[in-house]
Amino acid sequence: MGWGDLGAFGEPSKETPNLDQMAAEGMLFLDFYTANPLCSPSRAALLTGRLPVRNGFYTTNGHARNAYTPQDIVGGIPDSELLLPELLKKAGYTNKIIGKWHLGHRPQFHPLKHGFDEWFGSPNCHFGPYDGRERPNIPMYRDWEMVGRYYEDFKIDLKTGEANLTQLYLQEALDFISKQQASQQPFFLYWAIDATHAPVYASKQFLGTSQRGLYGDAVREIDDSIGKILKHLQQLGISESTFVFFTSDNGAALISAPKQGGSNGPFLCGKQTTFEGGMREPAIAWWPGHIPAGGVSHQLGSVMDLFSTSLSLAGLQPPSDRQIDGIDLLPVMLQGKLIDRPIFYYRGNELMAVRAGLYKAHYWTWSNSWEEHSKGIDFCPGQSVAGVTTHTQEEHTYLPLLFHLGRDPGEKYPLSFASEEYQRAMERISGLVQQHKATLVPGQPQLNVCDQAVMNWAPPGCEKLGKCLKAPESDPQKCSWPH
Amino acid sequence: MGWGDLGAFGEPSKETPNLDQMAAEGMLFLDFYTANPLCSPSRAALLTGRLPVRNGFYTTNGHARNAYTPQDIVGGIPDSELLLPELLKKAGYTNKIIGKWHLGHRPQFHPLKHGFDEWFGSPNCHFGPYDGRERPNIPMYRDWEMVGRYYEDFKIDLKTGEANLTQLYLQEALDFISKQQASQQPFFLYWAIDATHAPVYASKQFLGTSQRGLYGDAVREIDDSIGKILKHLQQLGISESTFVFFTSDNGAALISAPKQGGSNGPFLCGKQTTFEGGMREPAIAWWPGHIPAGGVSHQLGSVMDLFSTSLSLAGLQPPSDRQIDGIDLLPVMLQGKLIDRPIFYYRGNELMAVRAGLYKAHYWTWSNSWEEHSKGIDFCPGQSVAGVTTHTQEEHTYLPLLFHLGRDPGEKYPLSFASEEYQRAMERISGLVQQHKATLVPGQPQLNVCDQAVMNWAPPGCEKLGKCLKAPESDPQKCSWPH
Repeated sequence: MGWGDLGAFGEPSKETPNLDQMAAEGMLFLDFYTANPLCSPSRAALLTGRLPVRNGFYTTNGHARNAYTPQDIVGGIPDSELLLPELLKKAGYTNKIIGKWHLGHRPQFHPLKHGFDEWFGSPNCHFGPYDGRERPNIPMYRDWEMVGRYYEDFKIDLKTGEANLTQLYLQEALDFISKQQASQQPFFLYWAIDATHAPVYASKQFLGTSQRGLYGDAVREIDDSIGKILKHLQQLGISESTFVFFTSDNGAALISAPKQGGSNGPFLCGKQTTFEGGMREPAIAWWPGHIPAGGVSHQLGSVMDLFSTSLSLAGLQPPSDRQIDGIDLLPVMLQGKLIDRPIFYYRGNELMAVRAGLYKAHYWTWSNSWEEHSKGIDFCPGQSVAGVTTHTQEEHTYLPLLFHLGRDPGEKYPLSFASEEYQRAMERISGLVQQHKATLVPGQPQLNVCDQAVMNWAPPGCEKLGKCLKAPESDPQKCSWPH
Repeated sequence: MGWGDLGAFGEPSKETPNLDQMAAEGMLFLDFYTANPLCSPSRAALLTGRLPVRNGFYTTNGHARNAYTPQDIVGGIPDSELLLPELLKKAGYTNKIIGKWHLGHRPQFHPLKHGFDEWFGSPNCHFGPYDGRERPNIPMYRDWEMVGRYYEDFKIDLKTGEANLTQLYLQEALDFISKQQASQQPFFLYWAIDATHAPVYASKQFLGTSQRGLYGDAVREIDDSIGKILKHLQQLGISESTFVFFTSDNGAALISAPKQGGSNGPFLCGKQTTFEGGMREPAIAWWPGHIPAGGVSHQLGSVMDLFSTSLSLAGLQPPSDRQIDGIDLLPVMLQGKLIDRPIFYYRGNELMAVRAGLYKAHYWTWSNSWEEHSKGIDFCPGQSVAGVTTHTQEEHTYLPLLFHLGRDPGEKYPLSFASEEYQRAMERISGLVQQHKATLVPGQPQLNVCDQAVMNWAPPGCEKLGKCLKAPESDPQKCSWPH
């Protein structure tokens, strides 16, 4: 989902009454970022509070390449990483993930091995259908075991876009919340729905209800579900003791537009890029009685802050034996403070850009290669800024392109290198980059090796369902990451 | 000002608390249009309820050319046109215009000759400074007489952007409202501020207060002023008997960005073009106790509707001896109705595009000429959609480009000509166009002839001020309208 997909963020069809209401009752973050313009690394960063380059969710197979966890990925979240639910357990929390995990699908990466107590959802994207020979269909799990596969047991109609997955995820969420409330147990729910990821889907009751087509139908169903979750919290009388945060894992995938792609509002490009359209996210915090209603914050925030903020809410300290990139946003939300901190924009193993205050410096620019572009892969459709949305990887390390995101949110007008403003801003940013690089200890890259043998051929529980498939011989290869 | 310049419409700095509050207390129109992507024709349409091609505010000097009322324009609003204030007079209204008139500056076009009772403002844009030999500075009027000239008596500091004009206009508005309330007289106030038009300006107290630079300072001052006007109405106890509508006369002038240009949100291109960025406007209606708070409407609206709606509010009928393009929006605002009507997008003498429902058909596309573009004049900076943002005038009359503005508000993905959807939508639109063209009686074009002799050399009142200048010999020429 993109920054511009909610009514509260200026989507012209204004079809998200529940999320808009959530914002009216809570706090809107206008300058909130993901840690990576792609799903897996973003989610790894959310749960570890650390940049993908630290937690291992990146590749060194090529320079500045986006990588994630397809079925043939060998890696996943390392045991050495401490995930939010692992830490919350120490404070008595019951943790559930509903929806897409995406931090590795092999047994050692299973969410219940990394702090979650319950899971209903899938380890990978809902791509498919597959024939079960070249590639198995993605499994759905309930806790430790597979309960079926996409397209076989959990239908997604690629023609009509119909699938009732969001409704299943909603019911799971409501049931889990009810159960926790009944048992008076604190809980952490990671509601990781994926209806706006291509192939986009919505339930029958939402199909055709949006002005925006199927993508809008999916957004409306998500919006409706969030309204029901918040209402459920209120009806159970636990809204004032439940902190809720809504955000997305990367900008809208413009490559899937217009049928399956969303909007990044006035921002440049989309998913896969380190322009604002790829990294700036819709974000709303909600905690009635604590966060003042109708608040708006320009705090530079990150999905990694949800790690630190959640620990703070649970009365826990973040781990002190490692670098944590997230910060605690409670002073921002409860006291209206603004914390001065930079945003680092990574693509794979490269620091592409840095934001400090309203200034953003690009050290590298790249949309995608000419070769891909000539095949119709376009991360910036209809947009082209000379020297900025480049189709070759352009290095600007010695003279970064600098933008003022207040005057120029669309990253169209680089500041003059000769200006005093440029000098002043770059002095500050250079210091931040130096400090960042000097103390950076990159993690072991997890997204380098692919192997057909590790696909979801025979997930735990497959015997009971008669859904075990035979894996081919192991043949590890360097994964190919073209952009 | 552009669609994307208000917080309520998704401007990322969210610096318009008063307009956002006005929307929260009133009704937000998301699909509201001007009648022309340029100032003079738009304002002529607002006050006559008629398309510029009918009321004469267009040119036939070239095909599909934007034209307005610079100082050397010979034409202006014809006497045969009936302006809103002329009609409101019949219902006992006192009418005032504060700010830019822009419907012709020669004596016969004076606002007080066209129904206004009072005027404080200027007849043309605040361009300058001029030397008084080649070109006089633009006068400011109080009612019938000039009270000074821009840059001479009404300062605009082009270096700092400082000018206190919005404050003068605000005080005029508050005073007029107080006077009318005291005398229990109904009133029509046309508050035609122009601080966001290049050269953009703001008062000292607002300079440097916006994240967005000088343009944002100007927006903030306008926002603040509107807050004060609404508060004034409330304090005088007349808010429930005063209808207020906020909108703009064309999309943000991207050619002036980033320092002096605003935002058209997710829409394509800007001022001067008939893409959504040039024609779709921010729009808010406010009438406490009548228009439900927090309303949102997808009614296709037009500045021309303000003519018909205002007449309706005053209990008057629109003139029956001519075609009126505006419709009465009261059923939309008071009963939540949706009225099916098309939007016609004109550029000069050409019908460029038509919107019906969510479909928009382009019969002609043009951004501007290659010649102008090569000189750096760009109405779509950073945007380029092949075959759409064309630099030659492209005719699509026989096979219009069709967009679905719900799925594709950015006009990037024309529908397939072969699709059933295309056939169905074009059938409807073709009928509307046929009907429109068959009944169209074009007005006498007013913007064809220019003459240095008609400039503001010696406006009425100049003797008292010692500010009369000598006009050169009359030498009427065809005006040059390059885009």
